[in-house]
Amino acid sequence: MNKIEQIQNWIAENKGDFGLISDPKTIQYLTGFYSDPVERVLMLAVFKDAEPFIFAPALEVEAIKDTGWNHPVYGYLDHENPWKMIADRVQALLVDQKTVAIEKANLPVERLEALQRFFPATNFALNLTPEIEKMRLIKSADEIEKLNVAGKWADFAFAKGFEAAKIGTSEQQVAADLEYALKGEGIMEMSFDTLIQAGAHAAEPHGATGPTKIENNQLVLFDLGTVWEGYISDASRTVAVGKPDQKSMDIYNVCLEAQLTAQAAAKPGMMASELDKIARDIITQAGYGEYFIHRLGHGMGMGEHEFPSIMEGNDMLLRPGMCFSIEPGIYIPGVAGVRIEDCVHITETGAEPFTHTTKELQYVD
Amino acid sequence: MNKIEQIQNWIAENKGDFGLISDPKTIQYLTGFYSDPVERVLMLAVFKDAEPFIFAPALEVEAIKDTGWNHPVYGYLDHENPWKMIADRVQALLVDQKTVAIEKANLPVERLEALQRFFPATNFALNLTPEIEKMRLIKSADEIEKLNVAGKWADFAFAKGFEAAKIGTSEQQVAADLEYALKGEGIMEMSFDTLIQAGAHAAEPHGATGPTKIENNQLVLFDLGTVWEGYISDASRTVAVGKPDQKSMDIYNVCLEAQLTAQAAAKPGMMASELDKIARDIITQAGYGEYFIHRLGHGMGMGEHEFPSIMEGNDMLLRPGMCFSIEPGIYIPGVAGVRIEDCVHITETGAEPFTHTTKELQYVD
Repeated sequence: MNKIEQIQNWIAENKGDFGLISDPKTIQYLTGFYSDPVERVLMLAVFKDAEPFIFAPALEVEAIKDTGWNHPVYGYLDHENPWKMIADRVQALLVDQKTVAIEKANLPVERLEALQRFFPATNFALNLTPEIEKMRLIKSADEIEKLNVAGKWADFAFAKGFEAAKIGTSEQQVAADLEYALKGEGIMEMSFDTLIQAGAHAAEPHGATGPTKIENNQLVLFDLGTVWEGYISDASRTVAVGKPDQKSMDIYNVCLEAQLTAQAAAKPGMMASELDKIARDIITQAGYGEYFIHRLGHGMGMGEHEFPSIMEGNDMLLRPGMCFSIEPGIYIPGVAGVRIEDCVHITETGAEPFTHTTKELQYVD
Repeated sequence: MNKIEQIQNWIAENKGDFGLISDPKTIQYLTGFYSDPVERVLMLAVFKDAEPFIFAPALEVEAIKDTGWNHPVYGYLDHENPWKMIADRVQALLVDQKTVAIEKANLPVERLEALQRFFPATNFALNLTPEIEKMRLIKSADEIEKLNVAGKWADFAFAKGFEAAKIGTSEQQVAADLEYALKGEGIMEMSFDTLIQAGAHAAEPHGATGPTKIENNQLVLFDLGTVWEGYISDASRTVAVGKPDQKSMDIYNVCLEAQLTAQAAAKPGMMASELDKIARDIITQAGYGEYFIHRLGHGMGMGEHEFPSIMEGNDMLLRPGMCFSIEPGIYIPGVAGVRIEDCVHITETGAEPFTHTTKELQYVD
């Protein structure tokens, strides 16, 4: 049963008539076609008992056909009303329109109201988001393979970035150099803005790569990822320039122990919250609990913020095929920040990382 | 009156009690602070008659204070319920909660439902989106200045890209080279993925930069932009390598005439649709109307898809301070694609572009 048939079945089981899928990532997951239509409308309509269709900006129609989509695709021009046209296409199919499923986590209120104007007798209460999340939660062998390739390019990027990280070089230049090396290999897209933070700057866990220059005797934090056929990598390493002070070395060692211990412990049947606690307890016992101010990890696959969330309170059981980050961090304002991160997939017996750059402290420059 | 006061007044005039602002770009526009919280919650609460506050992931709290926000900011941790915490903060202010304005173009249905659970007696019918769009539609002198700087860096990028565009070089390498040159100058962020398309590849107006190598006697299309202090540039140029065939030269000249004529004609008091028609008529009269398959332009400023939309059916009158693209394109499948684009701002008497790279056909390599 293919993924669209799974959606059809879910709609039927939940007494829906059809579903309107609006998240470009979901459309990619279900059809292989990806485009971010920004403010234009891209919708995949999936029916309990009729052929699915894609409704898209006219500009995108050829690209959709090129991906091998062998059901109808209907284009619209900028001056046309996409909501009316979608309603007309559905009318033409002579299907029931009593209950329609939407992706509530994606569809903005204004678009729901636009649909309601052209489907005045329809109930839009059914939410497809949890079902899509459930499908995307467990990765197939094919998806794991893509994640492994994306991970390999993250390892390549670390190697290039560690070469570029010299005393006097700016964080921005290091990011530019490693991304340029990737592009030379045809890897054009990062999964998020490459983060390079030197010294105390790394104590801002959501700060940005800036003009700060690398100085001697510092830690430098790298957080980066690439995209491979719609699947991402995401990994962090912290490296040393010269001889960082004792406090920096201490938090590195604590963070490393937390990361290695959690990664070794991850296995099917464990609760997500348990895994968070394993890393958090190590950091707390070392006296740095208050400086580990985020969850241990996030699910990942086509994006870096999928399920499962590895955090306190999440009693979801880990299962083979789940993919997520294990990324303890310790951020001491004014001193240093350390984060060490691999993304892994749960196997039958444990967890395998997508990235393999050593986590032992590397001395660069 | 500052922008937040404008929102407060609008809420009062529309019989609302407060507004919950969820679009990160709107929050940046109103406060100066930008962060994309992805699946986390970032909200700006603006009250008719109480002090505004920002509600944000704990990770972001310091960065928000650093931008000079001098009202309360409340953080939440990943395992906490942000919706309940927002409701608690509002309760504590002892304000009315009968009618709340939201950004309907931004807020997903699921988040509205989460809010409704914690504000069970509140009406969320009031839509802030049109008011925000109206405010953002007319750019201030300060915003125009930022757009000019972003445009200057787009011109820099064209110069570097034209140098890199040699026979045998891939589209991807040209994009990599011009972005690397920008990063060397500290310009780290493009406003969208740089588009380089050679020969017939350019006939896919929403295709992507790929491994296609530039050949002799081709046109090569560039579409790129940079970000400067939250404001973008967006411009397209099509250049020649060797001697492109007569058809390619013909569509270049028609497209150029359409672009120059429209840009010279743009002025206050004209309808957006009239401007589209000026360019479209030239292309249609030359016999290429069916190959100009998108609107003439889009509004721009903090993003590339703001208002006004320059298209058929939009009778909005152009006014000083409006900023948009003028980008006719002719795309003949299997032959070539041409697009020539400046973004401009309407002045008291006409329109001024943000980019100044010549539009006369340039021969590179």
